[in-house]
Amino acid sequence: MEITAVKIKKEADINVIIGQTHFIKTVEDMYEVLTGSVPGIKFGLAFCEASGACLVRAEGTDDELKKLAVENALNIGAGHIFVVFLKGAYPINILNALKNLSEVCSIFCATANEVEIIVAQSQLGKGILGVIDGVSPKGVEKETDIKWRKDLLRKIGYKL
Amino acid sequence: MEITAVKIKKEADINVIIGQTHFIKTVEDMYEVLTGSVPGIKFGLAFCEASGACLVRAEGTDDELKKLAVENALNIGAGHIFVVFLKGAYPINILNALKNLSEVCSIFCATANEVEIIVAQSQLGKGILGVIDGVSPKGVEKETDIKWRKDLLRKIGYKL
Amino acid sequence: MEITAVKIKKEADINVIIGQTHFIKTVEDMYEVLTGSVPGIKFGLAFCEASGACLVRAEGTDDELKKLAVENALNIGAGHIFVVFLKGAYPINILNALKNLSEVCSIFCATANEVEIIVAQSQLGKGILGVIDGVSPKGVEKETDIKWRKDLLRKIGYKL
Amino acid sequence: MEITAVKIKKEADINVIIGQTHFIKTVEDMYEVLTGSVPGIKFGLAFCEASGACLVRAEGTDDELKKLAVENALNIGAGHIFVVFLKGAYPINILNALKNLSEVCSIFCATANEVEIIVAQSQLGKGILGVIDGVSPKGVEKETDIKWRKDLLRKIGYKL
Amino acid sequence: MEITAVKIKKEADINVIIGQTHFIKTVEDMYEVLTGSVPGIKFGLAFCEASGACLVRAEGTDDELKKLAVENALNIGAGHIFVVFLKGAYPINILNALKNLSEVCSIFCATANEVEIIVAQSQLGKGILGVIDGVSPKGVEKETDIKWRKDLLRKIGYKL
Amino acid sequence: MEITAVKIKKEADINVIIGQTHFIKTVEDMYEVLTGSVPGIKFGLAFCEASGACLVRAEGTDDELKKLAVENALNIGAGHIFVVFLKGAYPINILNALKNLSEVCSIFCATANEVEIIVAQSQLGKGILGVIDGVSPKGVEKETDIKWRKDLLRKIGYKL
Repeated sequence: MEITAVKIKKEADINVIIGQTHFIKTVEDMYEVLTGSVPGIKFGLAFCEASGACLVRAEGTDDELKKLAVENALNIGAGHIFVVFLKGAYPINILNALKNLSEVCSIFCATANEVEIIVAQSQLGKGILGVIDGVSPKGVEKETDIKWRKDLLRKIGYKL
Repeated sequence: MEITAVKIKKEADINVIIGQTHFIKTVEDMYEVLTGSVPGIKFGLAFCEASGACLVRAEGTDDELKKLAVENALNIGAGHIFVVFLKGAYPINILNALKNLSEVCSIFCATANEVEIIVAQSQLGKGILGVIDGVSPKGVEKETDIKWRKDLLRKIGYKL
Repeated sequence: MEITAVKIKKEADINVIIGQTHFIKTVEDMYEVLTGSVPGIKFGLAFCEASGACLVRAEGTDDELKKLAVENALNIGAGHIFVVFLKGAYPINILNALKNLSEVCSIFCATANEVEIIVAQSQLGKGILGVIDGVSPKGVEKETDIKWRKDLLRKIGYKL
Repeated sequence: MEITAVKIKKEADINVIIGQTHFIKTVEDMYEVLTGSVPGIKFGLAFCEASGACLVRAEGTDDELKKLAVENALNIGAGHIFVVFLKGAYPINILNALKNLSEVCSIFCATANEVEIIVAQSQLGKGILGVIDGVSPKGVEKETDIKWRKDLLRKIGYKL
Repeated sequence: MEITAVKIKKEADINVIIGQTHFIKTVEDMYEVLTGSVPGIKFGLAFCEASGACLVRAEGTDDELKKLAVENALNIGAGHIFVVFLKGAYPINILNALKNLSEVCSIFCATANEVEIIVAQSQLGKGILGVIDGVSPKGVEKETDIKWRKDLLRKIGYKL
Repeated sequence: MEITAVKIKKEADINVIIGQTHFIKTVEDMYEVLTGSVPGIKFGLAFCEASGACLVRAEGTDDELKKLAVENALNIGAGHIFVVFLKGAYPINILNALKNLSEVCSIFCATANEVEIIVAQSQLGKGILGVIDGVSPKGVEKETDIKWRKDLLRKIGYKL
């Protein structure tokens, strides 16, 4: 068994969500839940079918993001995983809707950071072991940092 | 620390769900939520108690599936994991009910595929790192493949 | 890429919950959902910001538990993970509330056991691959063990 | 404004679920969530569109139950309500899945009892105020009654 | 059909939750979810069985609250409703856990206020139409009132 | 006790959501969950405090919608209810997030239709009994109507 890090290819302003799911029905259900969550949402999603034809299945409302999802899903190459790319919408807008889908097992990450996917490969196939989502902490917040994060959340309208 | 792949032992028509949970109460609660989800459901479940007596705890409505769950849980041998085998019911029927249990942390996979569990072993014990769920993708769906998957979901009655 | 086991530092009667999340808003939202779940709850939480200032962000109602959360989050050092320590409350009291937060991707473990976190490190940063949560099973429960666990859950008031 | 009681027409072994929803998309989504919840589920559902063409919209896997749902929805005649009839499956199998639909506001009742729907009628239209779900209590359970209900739940396999 | 207001009998520091559910299994499941939500929770609950023996079914961890639940459930007398009284815990601690029970249809109110339950009675039985939960608003908040409510939530530790 | 119909004042393109909740914390939590659900969402919300100062409490991102929410909340005048008005976002985008708030008991309606709220008034206060949400059905869909609704959902991008 070999373990490697697969870098997610994306631009810095695009959010990616990667998870474990199952069943080809994921593709339609995820499309529907995403279009029903944010009006006019731009996204692309891809799912790795892991039996039968074993094709990457894809849907979306934006062709570029759909291509990107397919490309990254192929790079990861693990059975039953999905990849969603978002533009102009954010993971917090849709993460609970994805988690509630009856096909979804778990979410590995939801991030705009640089991300590496840790993939194990055996003779059977590939599987995701974990993610390296951005960089490691460089220290601990102090009073001024706490004030900064509270102000930030209020300035961008998420908190009162 | 050693990392190995543990193959799940099961027949091809049986679905397996594997996850991380905690607390011995998992066994009764999971039994109850499964019998309450699908009338007459056939399943076996096993949970690896990770302190005290450290026994594999098991319940179910089908003795064969229960034995299978125990056997596979022992093979994995990781603390606080659970294994569920289903026959005549499908993961989408019950996955949200399992995810909603207050003992359940996460679900590693839900699948009828051949599966390998990637297990780390230290002096303390064992832990699941990830799953290889079926085989890797061989390509990307084309128009005829998209039509096939849409038709399939409508033929088997999941979509209108 | 290097893979190591990071031992969680804590006393035996303290429960720890570790998960993957995203967004600095996690810290306030997790604080609010925890104080709203159990009256007078004692906890400390830390979150590894993985971009920008890359600071460990922390909140809590108990200074000791907050320090412990910060220390363990730094030891793990993986981007976008969180660590919660609880005293006088239990994971089953709050796990569903945490899972329902729109920032939370997944939960790696929730336990009072000795725990090791399996961490991968690349040039980019660190990521959690899995957990070793307590010890491996030593056998399978027999009739007397089943009676013991059923009695236990009824004695402590969780089951009728 | 007039307030009347509309009796639900159904046979005694059929369960009915009645709720408030909105949006014509309810019909397809409810069909899909029901077929995905219990293998081979037999049901009929009807939804009262309350603007535009104002038609009762219906789907299902059983023609008799679908007709029954349409007939009862017309009898109630309240905007944006839905009616589901089930055979061979039970409300506890599917109620959480219905509650989780993003179109569903609330559930008035889920029952096999004789039911009357309390309907208000104004010049605008009709609305459900509440339900009379079976008969009023005749007393309070005693020790033997408690034993009976605990035994019942264990005999039919819902509790251990 | 007759419509009356039934006043809930309780002391001012006790919270009451009233809802529509179904199935005798509600009693055990609600007990379990409540004891699993807040350590040492004091509560009493009652459920109006609406077929068969038609008894008020009750459980709890506090005899006074259990008696109070039974008395109020009898006063309401509507089929398939439940009444929960809490002391030293609050509705926000447990309301989502109750809403997630597969037997629960809806929640009419969760409050420490004086409450009247609006009940319809027909020849069949009784049903809850709605609740009068405390008193009507006397005005609209101004700047000082907004400051007061924000300060209050931060002083009691629910918000940061 | 008096029962009256209170007409919701709003323009035709605005959606309204009305529900039962409790606790002054509703106002901040609902604001946060709404701003976190749809980027740039325009809304106004009002909550009827039902003890103490008994003020209508309000928040929002759009002053007109906030005024509208306050005005309609005062017109209804029932304790512990809330009113949300949305523009450029739709109930399906946010209804599950509202239902998941630990303060929310139930949702009476979510609609762009003309709506009347059925309100009971006693000496204590007022309570919502139900809603008349749009007009009553005029018939049952036929083959061409079914085709129309399926085409509509696919044309507006909600279904594939």
